Amino acid sequence: MSRWEPDARGRLEAAALDLYGEHGYDNTTVAEIAERAGLTERTYFRHFADKREVLFAGAGDLQDQLVTGVLDAPESAPPIDAVALALQAAAPRFDQRSVQVAQRHAVISVNPELQERELIKLAWLAAALADALRRRGVREPAASLAAEAGIAVFKIAFERWLTERSRRGLAACIRDCFGELKLVTAGG
Amino acid sequence: MSRWEPDARGRLEAAALDLYGEHGYDNTTVAEIAERAGLTERTYFRHFADKREVLFAGAGDLQDQLVTGVLDAPESAPPIDAVALALQAAAPRFDQRSVQVAQRHAVISVNPELQERELIKLAWLAAALADALRRRGVREPAASLAAEAGIAVFKIAFERWLTERSRRGLAACIRDCFGELKLVTAGG
Repeated sequence: MSRWEPDARGRLEAAALDLYGEHGYDNTTVAEIAERAGLTERTYFRHFADKREVLFAGAGDLQDQLVTGVLDAPESAPPIDAVALALQAAAPRFDQRSVQVAQRHAVISVNPELQERELIKLAWLAAALADALRRRGVREPAASLAAEAGIAVFKIAFERWLTERSRRGLAACIRDCFGELKLVTAGG
Repeated sequence: MSRWEPDARGRLEAAALDLYGEHGYDNTTVAEIAERAGLTERTYFRHFADKREVLFAGAGDLQDQLVTGVLDAPESAPPIDAVALALQAAAPRFDQRSVQVAQRHAVISVNPELQERELIKLAWLAAALADALRRRGVREPAASLAAEAGIAVFKIAFERWLTERSRRGLAACIRDCFGELKLVTAGG
């Protein structure tokens, strides 16, 4: 049964995003996703554990990239800059897939259960960033504050990037937002 | 059936927190909570919609207090200071109930479903703070950044307050954490 299935994973993802957008996440079945992709359900489950995982499968890679980015930042970089550099380095993965990223965001934003999952993903990312900062020797609460502030910046930069899509890359939005954060927190 | 039940709500909350701590949230029923409180299930459901609500019933009041705090901050206060003042003004509600707050936190911290709910509550609080700042004339992304950074500070200050409990009030922890945030974000 192992016929060659070129880019099965990508085709399944594209089919899922299309169907979630057309009929809603709750109204779409794995069987329909597989059919749309011209593949079998069995192939779907070789790539994704369930219907939801197709939306969150990239979280692990993103976390690894952010942690590596923090650890690889110049030794002299203050914690908030190490976080900013890591987030900017991860930005191209969003730019390169901006259509799918926007589709995914649209699906999640109308589904409370998926929004919860997204919040948890962001909380994990913040915890991973804080842990990477502590491995750089940053103390608490500075490590957690820089990590949580960084994720807050990312959320807001990401939303701005989505609304002004194609005008400029996500890295530029992130950089601007860190600049705004500095202004905001210097405020009083 | 309407006999007088002095502080039924408080007794139900105390019974629920005790039982959740003793047997775990998942292993506790509303019938057991009512029995421990010396009340009926019917009384329980007059006060709380379900088992979970006893843990999150205060969220609305907290949000109202934070929004009022932001709107009532001196006109000259920069956005981050308006948020800091609002959070510090709400701190006594935690100090006054520190035993229950710690019990509640212990229950939530071992239950993924409750942790998700807590994250959502914090996301709502951030959205409400951002909205209050916009009503003060603060533009985006400054409003969202100040609100999200404020909630990040609150989370971290709250955890520190819990671990060093009784040593000092939550307002002092929040104030210190905002000071740290300024140092961290001024970093580079």
